[in-house]
Amino acid sequence: MSKGQIKWIRSLKDKKTREESQTFVVETEKSVVELLQSNWTVQKIICTEVFAQKHAQLLKKYPAERLLMLSESEIVQASQLENNKSALAVVQMPPKNAQPQAEGFCLYLDHIQDPGNLGTIVRIADWYGLQRVFCSLNTVDIYNPKSISASMGSFLRVSVHYVELDWLKNYPHVILGADMTGKNLHEIALPAQALLVIGNEGHGISYEVKALVHQFISIPRFGEAESLNAGVATAIICDNWRRAHKQ
Amino acid sequence: MSKGQIKWIRSLKDKKTREESQTFVVETEKSVVELLQSNWTVQKIICTEVFAQKHAQLLKKYPAERLLMLSESEIVQASQLENNKSALAVVQMPPKNAQPQAEGFCLYLDHIQDPGNLGTIVRIADWYGLQRVFCSLNTVDIYNPKSISASMGSFLRVSVHYVELDWLKNYPHVILGADMTGKNLHEIALPAQALLVIGNEGHGISYEVKALVHQFISIPRFGEAESLNAGVATAIICDNWRRAHKQ
Repeated sequence: MSKGQIKWIRSLKDKKTREESQTFVVETEKSVVELLQSNWTVQKIICTEVFAQKHAQLLKKYPAERLLMLSESEIVQASQLENNKSALAVVQMPPKNAQPQAEGFCLYLDHIQDPGNLGTIVRIADWYGLQRVFCSLNTVDIYNPKSISASMGSFLRVSVHYVELDWLKNYPHVILGADMTGKNLHEIALPAQALLVIGNEGHGISYEVKALVHQFISIPRFGEAESLNAGVATAIICDNWRRAHKQ
Repeated sequence: MSKGQIKWIRSLKDKKTREESQTFVVETEKSVVELLQSNWTVQKIICTEVFAQKHAQLLKKYPAERLLMLSESEIVQASQLENNKSALAVVQMPPKNAQPQAEGFCLYLDHIQDPGNLGTIVRIADWYGLQRVFCSLNTVDIYNPKSISASMGSFLRVSVHYVELDWLKNYPHVILGADMTGKNLHEIALPAQALLVIGNEGHGISYEVKALVHQFISIPRFGEAESLNAGVATAIICDNWRRAHKQ
């Protein structure tokens, strides 16, 4: 591989470059395989010979010029993750949905900063069958390689939308906020249609968003830990919601 | 600080050195402050002048020779974590409990490999008021700096015991295993006294431990994600257990 190509792939770790080219990188065998099974537009697949042989069936539909076979050490060089030795793919971003529908139970992430947390939350949304995750504009980018990796392929199924505060003001259903001061999750009835706001890792829900929350809910605590991390809190609330709304 | 001291502190990142010296390192302002508020035996506190002034009250009870004031950049050098610029402490391990009691709801971690996952699980145990976490001998060390950091101070309150398989064979209560093939968590009654087995991140519960499980339980899935991570799964099951057993 030319140094230019490695440079191009590595440049996609920057959000600005991703935005301009409307492309991002998917890494590791598991995620690339899931990607190839989807109907997303893959611009380039870069993989080892071992990967290409193992997944020959999946690769058949791609013209030869979209495929690039490299050694393990070259893959490591091009990768942005530490543990990837087998494959990466340059993928076209899906078109942005200007008016995403807000039906059922959805999440709204208010300034989530850690890309791993964002990916984990998308994975949890996928597990619980939620279709959409909305994010404040200052939430970390879903196309960050660490977000994509932590989502374990769930980014292919859950759509993530970045929205202005005005969007939240016009939300048609109940807005719930996860907050330590809220009502005990085990003692209230969660509505079938709602938006659950998850706040920033260190500071919780922002002032502006708090003003729009209709009901604060809390996860009952029985011991002394000060808090739970954002992904864990999201999962517990989704599980409680699913207990009441199985369909 | 002499290079020797930096070397000594950094050497405690190895389990063998920790075992031999029966000491480990606690890092970052938040964790060190919680430590100083506890009754654990602190051998050395290494911190910036800013930290020492801010927490003068807490530091008063320590003789001067246990305190070492350093610059931010020296702290960074001695640290094993990336984000620590303010304080670290060398701490004596508590004595090992040869016959840890197994009452109430406890966890058993079967070959958890990631230190961050272990710390997160200890934090979750603390949140839900569980007193003990048991670990297979091949589970990562709780005194690993990344485990200690991820536990967010909960290592001070939840005791972690490494036990042989024989211990599990003689467990006096029901043994539950988290496994995708198990009964739906939302549809069964969880016993008040039980041990919940959480398996390895990639391979689940080992063959030997599976043979000792009385009942497998699963977290109901409504979407398409293949799995949930170990910490998230633990939290959801603990939350369901607490719904049935509030005391």
